[in-house]
Amino acid sequence: KIRKELNIPDIPGYKALKCDFHTHTVFSDGQVWPTIRVLEAYEEGLDAVAITDHVESRTNHKNGDLQGDHNRSYDIAKKREKSLDVLVIKGAEISRSMPPGHWNALFLENTNLLDVPKYEDAFKETAKQKAFTFWNHPGWYRHAPDTTKWLDVHTKLYNEGYMHGIEIANGAVEGYYPEAHQWALDKNLTFMGNTDIHGTTAMTYDFAKGEHRTMTIVFAKERTLEGIREALDNRRTVVWYSNLVIGRENLLKELLNQTIQVVNVKRSKKEASVTIKNNSDFTLYIKKYKHDPNLNYFREIKLRPGERKDLSIRFVEPASGKLKLDFRVENFYVSPYKGLDYFIEF
Amino acid sequence: KIRKELNIPDIPGYKALKCDFHTHTVFSDGQVWPTIRVLEAYEEGLDAVAITDHVESRTNHKNGDLQGDHNRSYDIAKKREKSLDVLVIKGAEISRSMPPGHWNALFLENTNLLDVPKYEDAFKETAKQKAFTFWNHPGWYRHAPDTTKWLDVHTKLYNEGYMHGIEIANGAVEGYYPEAHQWALDKNLTFMGNTDIHGTTAMTYDFAKGEHRTMTIVFAKERTLEGIREALDNRRTVVWYSNLVIGRENLLKELLNQTIQVVNVKRSKKEASVTIKNNSDFTLYIKKYKHDPNLNYFREIKLRPGERKDLSIRFVEPASGKLKLDFRVENFYVSPYKGLDYFIEF
Amino acid sequence: KIRKELNIPDIPGYKALKCDFHTHTVFSDGQVWPTIRVLEAYEEGLDAVAITDHVESRTNHKNGDLQGDHNRSYDIAKKREKSLDVLVIKGAEISRSMPPGHWNALFLENTNLLDVPKYEDAFKETAKQKAFTFWNHPGWYRHAPDTTKWLDVHTKLYNEGYMHGIEIANGAVEGYYPEAHQWALDKNLTFMGNTDIHGTTAMTYDFAKGEHRTMTIVFAKERTLEGIREALDNRRTVVWYSNLVIGRENLLKELLNQTIQVVNVKRSKKEASVTIKNNSDFTLYIKKYKHDPNLNYFREIKLRPGERKDLSIRFVEPASGKLKLDFRVENFYVSPYKGLDYFIEF
Amino acid sequence: KIRKELNIPDIPGYKALKCDFHTHTVFSDGQVWPTIRVLEAYEEGLDAVAITDHVESRTNHKNGDLQGDHNRSYDIAKKREKSLDVLVIKGAEISRSMPPGHWNALFLENTNLLDVPKYEDAFKETAKQKAFTFWNHPGWYRHAPDTTKWLDVHTKLYNEGYMHGIEIANGAVEGYYPEAHQWALDKNLTFMGNTDIHGTTAMTYDFAKGEHRTMTIVFAKERTLEGIREALDNRRTVVWYSNLVIGRENLLKELLNQTIQVVNVKRSKKEASVTIKNNSDFTLYIKKYKHDPNLNYFREIKLRPGERKDLSIRFVEPASGKLKLDFRVENFYVSPYKGLDYFIEF
Repeated sequence: KIRKELNIPDIPGYKALKCDFHTHTVFSDGQVWPTIRVLEAYEEGLDAVAITDHVESRTNHKNGDLQGDHNRSYDIAKKREKSLDVLVIKGAEISRSMPPGHWNALFLENTNLLDVPKYEDAFKETAKQKAFTFWNHPGWYRHAPDTTKWLDVHTKLYNEGYMHGIEIANGAVEGYYPEAHQWALDKNLTFMGNTDIHGTTAMTYDFAKGEHRTMTIVFAKERTLEGIREALDNRRTVVWYSNLVIGRENLLKELLNQTIQVVNVKRSKKEASVTIKNNSDFTLYIKKYKHDPNLNYFREIKLRPGERKDLSIRFVEPASGKLKLDFRVENFYVSPYKGLDYFIEF
Repeated sequence: KIRKELNIPDIPGYKALKCDFHTHTVFSDGQVWPTIRVLEAYEEGLDAVAITDHVESRTNHKNGDLQGDHNRSYDIAKKREKSLDVLVIKGAEISRSMPPGHWNALFLENTNLLDVPKYEDAFKETAKQKAFTFWNHPGWYRHAPDTTKWLDVHTKLYNEGYMHGIEIANGAVEGYYPEAHQWALDKNLTFMGNTDIHGTTAMTYDFAKGEHRTMTIVFAKERTLEGIREALDNRRTVVWYSNLVIGRENLLKELLNQTIQVVNVKRSKKEASVTIKNNSDFTLYIKKYKHDPNLNYFREIKLRPGERKDLSIRFVEPASGKLKLDFRVENFYVSPYKGLDYFIEF
Repeated sequence: KIRKELNIPDIPGYKALKCDFHTHTVFSDGQVWPTIRVLEAYEEGLDAVAITDHVESRTNHKNGDLQGDHNRSYDIAKKREKSLDVLVIKGAEISRSMPPGHWNALFLENTNLLDVPKYEDAFKETAKQKAFTFWNHPGWYRHAPDTTKWLDVHTKLYNEGYMHGIEIANGAVEGYYPEAHQWALDKNLTFMGNTDIHGTTAMTYDFAKGEHRTMTIVFAKERTLEGIREALDNRRTVVWYSNLVIGRENLLKELLNQTIQVVNVKRSKKEASVTIKNNSDFTLYIKKYKHDPNLNYFREIKLRPGERKDLSIRFVEPASGKLKLDFRVENFYVSPYKGLDYFIEF
Repeated sequence: KIRKELNIPDIPGYKALKCDFHTHTVFSDGQVWPTIRVLEAYEEGLDAVAITDHVESRTNHKNGDLQGDHNRSYDIAKKREKSLDVLVIKGAEISRSMPPGHWNALFLENTNLLDVPKYEDAFKETAKQKAFTFWNHPGWYRHAPDTTKWLDVHTKLYNEGYMHGIEIANGAVEGYYPEAHQWALDKNLTFMGNTDIHGTTAMTYDFAKGEHRTMTIVFAKERTLEGIREALDNRRTVVWYSNLVIGRENLLKELLNQTIQVVNVKRSKKEASVTIKNNSDFTLYIKKYKHDPNLNYFREIKLRPGERKDLSIRFVEPASGKLKLDFRVENFYVSPYKGLDYFIEF
């Protein structure tokens, strides 16, 4: 077992916890023993993983191979929590046709009680158990063949207080859901991004090539289950899916403050060299949309994880005093498809 | 020395030759001996590399470290052509301020004759030597701070027959130039994409993470210098820059025909499973924009180099006869920022 | 799913089939669904995999999680054989304390019949089913704390015709067993090397770093189950464990003939340059133990997978006629710890 | 530029500095500009690099391509020292036929003064400049076709105080020199291991596969040129070549103390599980040669960089009190081919 720490910077006041809130095991329709989920999380540098086997789609039980109740997969996984130092969260996936579609409930006490005929009763039970619930992969083509749609049932569930978060991206259903992104902004939902992994993560993500699992970065006061829950309840999350980092603007700005470091500045009256470094595992796609007309510098650059780059700036006229390099980080989405405007002062 | 073959399929009638037509060595302002350029090309699976040292910007000579004429770097590199089986092309970069900016000439006979005070005379000399010439990195911020511009001088050079091709992308100047892309379409220029490498390729591209050098894929009748020249003259090239594959629609379509393979089809009246495989080193970003309303399938998928995927298709109503899966390959640009529409019949 | 083909050359008359004859699933004490074993084999470029769940150590059944008979894991895996083109072999592991220790039986018809109180009866049943049987990890510390021992029971089983092969190396029990290697030579047993994998291969082998699973390379007349069986029966196997390639001298020599290619020879009266290439995924550790006193060349070199190297040879006295470069491939074991002597003529 | 820090633990009282004391550039017979040597060192996580161009073998000058004196390559490299935070050492290689063979001098003031007809005078000059001098690749086949030999000239140079160190391993001349290892022990010489790189390190070492350049690990009181010099003078170095870590027993033991960490111990009367972790980038090849007869545990294991492993120990008889796991780290050489005996108490 080799743990590869993920390099995601903390922000002032909060630790950046790397979490996956949506995983399956052989105890529903997955293909690995629950222990593997915790080992994968350890190796990939995660802080927490939720075991969220389907309540309904238990194909391995239907086939007569598995037996046991709905709490079993979590119980097996939980045994590895301490020695591997990966927080394990008890969850479940309520898996109905659309509407309401698939929903995850986290921080459950007894998953068996969710196994009821009507989904309305399952939701009531999640409330009784004070679970955190969110809508999974609203853009799944089986539920939304070409457009991600918000239906009346979703309004009802939202109004009744059952929708705490929503998946903006999901690893199993490829793609990013701009509609869900906008709803999360409009309705103050917690941004969620997870793997929904059924097989092994190693077969799904090519870690050697720099790929990472889809995950939710939780900004928590402390690295505990309570810390995660508090952060989820207070919407302090960012989704990391493929090259995209998606979150509320204030969080993304704080994150970028810790990510882009000005390592060195050399400056004369006619030009400057500003050395910046990417202190994270995010790749930054940077593009200039506007700029101080006196400054001549890059139009577009990419800054890979850990990469350091010397930015050359030429002054049209000799300049003194503070100067600003304006640019946009294209893949830090503050709203659907829109990057984060940022600048470096030197 | 370990050669890693690039997996770019040939198309009917033509071999896909992987070429870099823009490189530097210590004999201008580069940082490696010319031999290294051929070794790098060998290791990265290239078919051909051009040595195109600056005629004007010979900083290492000005500093008193290097001496020798303008043909020397090519001569050194050429010695490794045969044993490494990498074609080595004699070139040079005419490096003037804008306009006309920087230009490469390929297939030169004597580079020394390009070292003249007026750029107009240098161009005349390229014509005498029957060189293939193209405009380099038209989007370089030093020459085009925020917009890539076509100036009167370019019209003149174009009309006089000096502009055979244009770089749509360049590895040293990060970014893709949509304006140049459009000009190449409108004015029937050869699409060029090159590294413009000064240091080592290994420090610029992270091969282990799947990165590749910016290159021009030449569809040639034969793997010879003459074959390359004929293809350049007849505009049969495609640019591979970062995740983008940029070319004329007919070439991209031929290329995609060889890239996407239908490995297996299982079909009943109600659903089908179509297994496709990516027979190339391109990553394919596939998105559905329109579809047969009776077919329910993916909205967005990624197909990595060599990857094989089972596509699940459900029929709204039972279906028989030929069916079509429509989608767009987002990163195969047939015009600025526009992907290639494609379909699979099964 | 991305298949990475293994580069192991065929030898005259035989195909090199890459096989793993010892794997576990959740249906005994493993941690993955049987399907994963076939997917792993596909991705790693294997030709065949045997599912060999323990007959006795079925911890997941004892815990009340799994149910079903001894044939079930094979049946599940077998369904993926055709589409993934990986041959799936029905096997089982008879798991007793020492003696006789653990044994694998391959090509079974009905595994349930091996679930009998006395191991002697289990062996009789393997014979009835015409299985191929071999002794697993004879050097496991639980069975052999510091020395690998051949006990009377093993003589008996051998004499009764139950011992067809023996593991020279095993991936789960780290290490190579020189004693077993010698026994295999002395008693004409088939050389076996397997993973004995319980978790995922990706957590056990770091493929990105060039590691490979422990495997048996089978030289078969055809790529079928029958072809494999015929080759096993006729002892045509080589074990690939870590950096070691272990086999009978004639097979190793044939294999090396196909592995080391002389790409180019330049020769004058005073010196020569011989370019060799490693046409395999084996790393070759080459050392000179003796040499033509007139030839001055390397003392030790390493040739990595696919690597090409220019060997420089200086002649003490001018030489003409055929010359021989003698060396030993240290990690091609023809007997315990002894490499294979080889030479190149030029 | 992406720096990949090397994980080599400090030992009590000393920092572990990763150094390469033998490199070439285009200013002798190398193939890269001096700047590249510092950039490579930065990217590979080195603390210091010496530029040691040949005084005699200046092929690029002889060919009429390069000009300039012997200090030039160092001067160019030195300019990048501060911004990249890699210490750059002024050195040179005195390159004569055998005897005395090739020798490096470090911490020179003026390399030009070493360019004298007689090697004896060159050595005298190194002493005048208070340089640190060592014998390079004593096992190079051109100088020692089959056996590494100590000649009378070496005795003379040693007695005159010119031999401070000796290369035990060299990256360009493949192989480890057991004879030199023994001489270093017998004559109290500083252990040296270096790349002797002429091309690029990226073409020589496959970093993505976990390879590292041959290097000298210097245990210094501070990370400065003076700190390195003091450590070299006082023989506090360890050579890291391929999988071998070669040094004096006391240093290796200190290093292993910091490398192997006991993460967790679970123990009952009948068995124990000891979790260990490798806190370094060394791979540890561990083998049991003797053991407490009451303890049944592994016979051989490999511990990769950063790897964590649960060691299972069974007690033959119930045990209490402190217990010892004995083993040898095979690839930590304390004398030619002999590993370091070690134990873990729990």
